[in-house]
Amino acid sequence: METLDYVPLRLKKNEERRLLAGHAWIFSNEVDVEATPIRSLEPGQPVTLQDSRGRTLGTGYANPNSLICARLVTRDADHPFGPSLLVHRLKVALSLRERLFEEPFYRLVHGESDGLPGLVVDRYGDVLVAQITTAGMERLRDALLSAFEKVLRPSAVLWRNDSPVRSLEGLDLYVQPATGPIPETVEITENGARFQVPLLAGQKTGWFYDQRDNRAWLRRLSTGARVLDLFSYAGGWGIQAAMHGAEQVTCVDASADAVAQVEANARLNRVDDRVQALAGDAFEVLRRLREERARFDLIIVDPPAFIKRRKDLKEGTAAYRRINQMALQVLARDGFLIACSCSQHMAADALEKQIHAAARHVDRQMQILSRGGQASDHPIHPAMPETAYLKAILCRCIGQ
Amino acid sequence: METLDYVPLRLKKNEERRLLAGHAWIFSNEVDVEATPIRSLEPGQPVTLQDSRGRTLGTGYANPNSLICARLVTRDADHPFGPSLLVHRLKVALSLRERLFEEPFYRLVHGESDGLPGLVVDRYGDVLVAQITTAGMERLRDALLSAFEKVLRPSAVLWRNDSPVRSLEGLDLYVQPATGPIPETVEITENGARFQVPLLAGQKTGWFYDQRDNRAWLRRLSTGARVLDLFSYAGGWGIQAAMHGAEQVTCVDASADAVAQVEANARLNRVDDRVQALAGDAFEVLRRLREERARFDLIIVDPPAFIKRRKDLKEGTAAYRRINQMALQVLARDGFLIACSCSQHMAADALEKQIHAAARHVDRQMQILSRGGQASDHPIHPAMPETAYLKAILCRCIGQ
Repeated sequence: METLDYVPLRLKKNEERRLLAGHAWIFSNEVDVEATPIRSLEPGQPVTLQDSRGRTLGTGYANPNSLICARLVTRDADHPFGPSLLVHRLKVALSLRERLFEEPFYRLVHGESDGLPGLVVDRYGDVLVAQITTAGMERLRDALLSAFEKVLRPSAVLWRNDSPVRSLEGLDLYVQPATGPIPETVEITENGARFQVPLLAGQKTGWFYDQRDNRAWLRRLSTGARVLDLFSYAGGWGIQAAMHGAEQVTCVDASADAVAQVEANARLNRVDDRVQALAGDAFEVLRRLREERARFDLIIVDPPAFIKRRKDLKEGTAAYRRINQMALQVLARDGFLIACSCSQHMAADALEKQIHAAARHVDRQMQILSRGGQASDHPIHPAMPETAYLKAILCRCIGQ
Repeated sequence: METLDYVPLRLKKNEERRLLAGHAWIFSNEVDVEATPIRSLEPGQPVTLQDSRGRTLGTGYANPNSLICARLVTRDADHPFGPSLLVHRLKVALSLRERLFEEPFYRLVHGESDGLPGLVVDRYGDVLVAQITTAGMERLRDALLSAFEKVLRPSAVLWRNDSPVRSLEGLDLYVQPATGPIPETVEITENGARFQVPLLAGQKTGWFYDQRDNRAWLRRLSTGARVLDLFSYAGGWGIQAAMHGAEQVTCVDASADAVAQVEANARLNRVDDRVQALAGDAFEVLRRLREERARFDLIIVDPPAFIKRRKDLKEGTAAYRRINQMALQVLARDGFLIACSCSQHMAADALEKQIHAAARHVDRQMQILSRGGQASDHPIHPAMPETAYLKAILCRCIGQ
């Protein structure tokens, strides 16, 4: 099992440059298909990547059915892509999280940035929720399970393999227990608050650990404040605001399940007397609040990605502008706005520009107090801007 | 005193666009000098700014001797630039800091971002250290003192008017007590550590509050670590690392005064058994440490601006690359690097690029864990990229 059956994959002349600069992806038009006919490979085939002169660049895996037709996993000839490298990379990933966090609640593996392209793993104590997004990783599914067992001895592992990006690799979508009994919910703590996280029915891999550090802003901002948490999901922002002294918190989410989770989590933290959850479309709710002349001292706008593909850029950008402008219309004098975007295709300065335009439109002067990104358990790969996706801007909007 | 003697300053056609987009500066080539001959104005002259058709844009002040020949202070016709606006803006600035911080140690006024162009004020409890950088603010120096008195009743105010940028405005450089007895040092706390700050003899306005939030990273990184703090000044990073459990800390600064301050601050926090301070050039010290095969688990590179003017960009960029590459050569396996730049002319991604190039050169894989900026008491003006200057990148460098 230790040595995989690698086949060579040769790049065209000069197409190795991005890899040499540190990137990990090969696109199908970069392969010398005469020397190495990629069409004949199986999805997930382990490969040795070569430059146009046949020099080895490293090992990884290929998928002839995907636009990203291969991924470089390692440049180290002594430790090629395979089961034992998975164990090593998992240990390196774990050692970072053990250094950063006191409690075992975090993203354990963040794809390329942890040297494990096509794999995301979230840790909930003894339970792991893993998501595979490439055929190359799918092929090593059993080896991954062994690696989890060896490095962490989890009580349970859930394959949360229902991300739509799997279809780009020709993979089917499924949610399936891998080992152990999967609890319906697990309890985590974040910045001192407790949350019940639904594993099977929750969004994505269950919890948005990526906002942990940005939610820590609430400690300074919440005392005595009226807080509005839009697109609240299970109440990550709103409940932490209440824990830090908010006078009243309104969480809004389109999903009735999310509303029930907010209520359960509010009770769990004994702040249910100050947290209210509304099921509804955030745009609709803002319209109604504006009519009612409601005012909030702190508003969090943390929507799902409005820009899923590059072609949505214009429309999605306008949606970010619209939702934040509507939020500003119910923001109290000199109030605080936390505006987020998890759209990888939207740059941080583009988001700031939209919010600033919205602020000028409603005659408020904006001060940017913090520019936040994804938490440290979601590292960014310096050669792969694709691995940076989350933006959170904390601003104060002077005037009324 | 309440109403100033404003004179009109008219812009050429279309030159009002930047102001309408929210910016606050007027450059000398944008003024319609036939309608309003700016050369005849006194430095610091209060002005009414007009577009080419004579419509009022707002009020502010001018300086015929400066490239930035005028600054817009307010667009509100009912509350023009003058003493009572200073009081109002100071109150708005104070209310932000009182919301953000439990203790009175912070930057109270951050120039344009707080609506007070040409003014920086740092607060050390009852003592204020103020720095004026424009002739317009210098002219209102007495009104500023009254505003401080009215809003804060400080026990002492020090004019730390020795910034070289004053010469661009034709102002002389001086350090002068304004009111009250100025203590030689004041004590502050930052992230739980205590520091003695020298007011008269210290760098800039005394303390670099802008790194407060980035220094909070040390809480997660320091336990048991060997730490190297380069360009340490009074030990802001190093002493906090020791407080959070570092096994041993080496602070390096070229100034013997700074070294003495590190030592005093280490004693103050009872970590002097684990903090060592070296007087020396950081490049030289790194060369020696490399020869000695020294290794550190966490290195902080927080130099003074290597790029002071745009023309220094190339040389300064190379210096950032060099110092960080030398740091990586004494960084232990899988160690952490905090690389900072306070050069306004260097973009965050340019700094990352240099560090990534350095990491690849020494065969380390870099993970970006956090991208930090200046703390929230140094707000960024969304229309003025000039107000964002500090970058701090926390990364982990895998391999050896």
